[in-house]
Amino acid sequence: MAGYVPGEQLNDPDIIKLNTNENPYPPSPRVFEAIHAALTSNSLRKYPQPLGDTFRRAAGRVLNVSPDSILIGNGSDDILTILTRAFVPEDGLMASATPSYILYRSLAEIQGARFEAHRFTDSWALAESWPRGADLTFLPNPNSPSGTVVDPETIVRLAQTLAPTPLVLDEAYSDFTTWSGLELLASTPNLIITRTLSKSYSLAGIRFGFAIAAPELVRELVKVKDSYNCDVLSLAAATAAIEDQDYFREVRAKIIATRTRMTQELAAQGFDVTPSHSNFVWCRRSDRSVKPIYEELKRRKILVRYMSYPTGPLGAPEGAYDGLRVSVGTDSEIDNLLRELKAIL
Amino acid sequence: MAGYVPGEQLNDPDIIKLNTNENPYPPSPRVFEAIHAALTSNSLRKYPQPLGDTFRRAAGRVLNVSPDSILIGNGSDDILTILTRAFVPEDGLMASATPSYILYRSLAEIQGARFEAHRFTDSWALAESWPRGADLTFLPNPNSPSGTVVDPETIVRLAQTLAPTPLVLDEAYSDFTTWSGLELLASTPNLIITRTLSKSYSLAGIRFGFAIAAPELVRELVKVKDSYNCDVLSLAAATAAIEDQDYFREVRAKIIATRTRMTQELAAQGFDVTPSHSNFVWCRRSDRSVKPIYEELKRRKILVRYMSYPTGPLGAPEGAYDGLRVSVGTDSEIDNLLRELKAIL
Repeated sequence: MAGYVPGEQLNDPDIIKLNTNENPYPPSPRVFEAIHAALTSNSLRKYPQPLGDTFRRAAGRVLNVSPDSILIGNGSDDILTILTRAFVPEDGLMASATPSYILYRSLAEIQGARFEAHRFTDSWALAESWPRGADLTFLPNPNSPSGTVVDPETIVRLAQTLAPTPLVLDEAYSDFTTWSGLELLASTPNLIITRTLSKSYSLAGIRFGFAIAAPELVRELVKVKDSYNCDVLSLAAATAAIEDQDYFREVRAKIIATRTRMTQELAAQGFDVTPSHSNFVWCRRSDRSVKPIYEELKRRKILVRYMSYPTGPLGAPEGAYDGLRVSVGTDSEIDNLLRELKAIL
Repeated sequence: MAGYVPGEQLNDPDIIKLNTNENPYPPSPRVFEAIHAALTSNSLRKYPQPLGDTFRRAAGRVLNVSPDSILIGNGSDDILTILTRAFVPEDGLMASATPSYILYRSLAEIQGARFEAHRFTDSWALAESWPRGADLTFLPNPNSPSGTVVDPETIVRLAQTLAPTPLVLDEAYSDFTTWSGLELLASTPNLIITRTLSKSYSLAGIRFGFAIAAPELVRELVKVKDSYNCDVLSLAAATAAIEDQDYFREVRAKIIATRTRMTQELAAQGFDVTPSHSNFVWCRRSDRSVKPIYEELKRRKILVRYMSYPTGPLGAPEGAYDGLRVSVGTDSEIDNLLRELKAIL
């Protein structure tokens, strides 16, 4: 088994890092206050809240869902692992779309399960007929690497097709688009939504994610998670971050403005740029591989994510399908990127 | 499936909490400094080191092992979960001793594996013949709830019996006794040691544990863990804690001194007290259940862990076997406990 390989984490402080969709802006100032307040001898030496009740109440208020419908995780990776262990027997079947987040396949391998990936259409929609039979289906929405979204009607139809087995809507990037599956939860009992604070809340370093699902399902998933899967400082940080919605909206607006600008300018440089609903942009050249561009950017200390898939969406030429997934950085980082790209091209 | 139920975490600040083996003393002052130093916008918004290289180097120096032999975990629960996923197929077999840590059985249930528990002898040694055939065997050393240790010769013999399948020596409490399986690692390739910073380093709140095993094994286990399973602040705290060995020794000495005193005084009050190599003491009454004592202590705001097993070690009367597992608190907490016990008895 090869194992999942995360994006490069280089230590060079001069590097411009646009490869793992980290948020270029700091977390809310309230996060720092909350960590300072939680940093006591008693909180460090004692076990944390097993279910994260304080976070669950705060997130419940902000998202307008019951705290009982929230499951806390040590990053949304932890949530995806818990879901896999809860629903997928050995030699079971997991499914997703492709090209998409490659971790899903790794989770299937670790679980000893089979994995099927169904190709997106040429407009990054779901194919008309989606096979039934998977024990667990993951759909990232927005999708990575494309940054595209599938509409609510399609999600509901897919969930109904798959019922009673669960459809996991991986909403790691949903804060950067205009709708979320949250509104579908009440009427779609086999829908599970996962979220992370790594992207829109600038907290990749503290590892915090959560799931939102029917309370009776959450009660069962709690039995599968480690008893104390989130630590006291991460819980404090996550609670403060989600409570500061003003700051959150301000950062999101900056990212979306930069995304609009970089989409236009990358297109003007000849890239095929997929309109993004996320905090990254998917750029391809229709006539050639972009690997040399990735390598030359890296040489110039700009790190973007080079992704290559065995096949692209339907309609793409057969064979390897590659592109650059470029995180939305600060305006000055993106200016730098655009300048270097101009020199390279 | 019932799921593992951790010890009660009551919020009442007046309660004396002697039920989950938390350390009654604060973590090293260097832990606070390290967290403050790590608390920057950049460290929070970026992903942490996937393998925890800074911690691995520090722990490698302190424990005199190669950093490549160390696997970091989000608490040692995370490590035990990773090991279960790596070694145990569905319908596989996991084994441990009994009475012992009840999480092992829960891990088997989550994995869909069978579980066998082999009874300790009446002196908390291992039975002469230990059955082969388990995919993974856990032995906590010191054991909980007894606080007893098995000697190195027996560990080596057991590992040889089980080879090539792994023997996991769960050393959550080994800092409170006089020997560790570390010295056996080089000559016992199927031995895996797990450690936690929750107990001896007063860091239950930050969730940090690790495994020590052959580097080629660690390389494979890395593929099973979540990519970023430890957060940046926990990594900083863990590194600072393990580097401050002077402070560690000072706290350990205090705990061992209190343990000696409470062992004598509990025995003087008529309890059967098992000599402890850990930071808790196992107390029973040979003539009756101790559940009423637990309940009366709780009413008086002293929380100890009441444990009841379907069977005791060999030689114990057949049927339920119960006792109080009392964490070693501060001297004043233990004075309080002894005073209330005297009133109750």
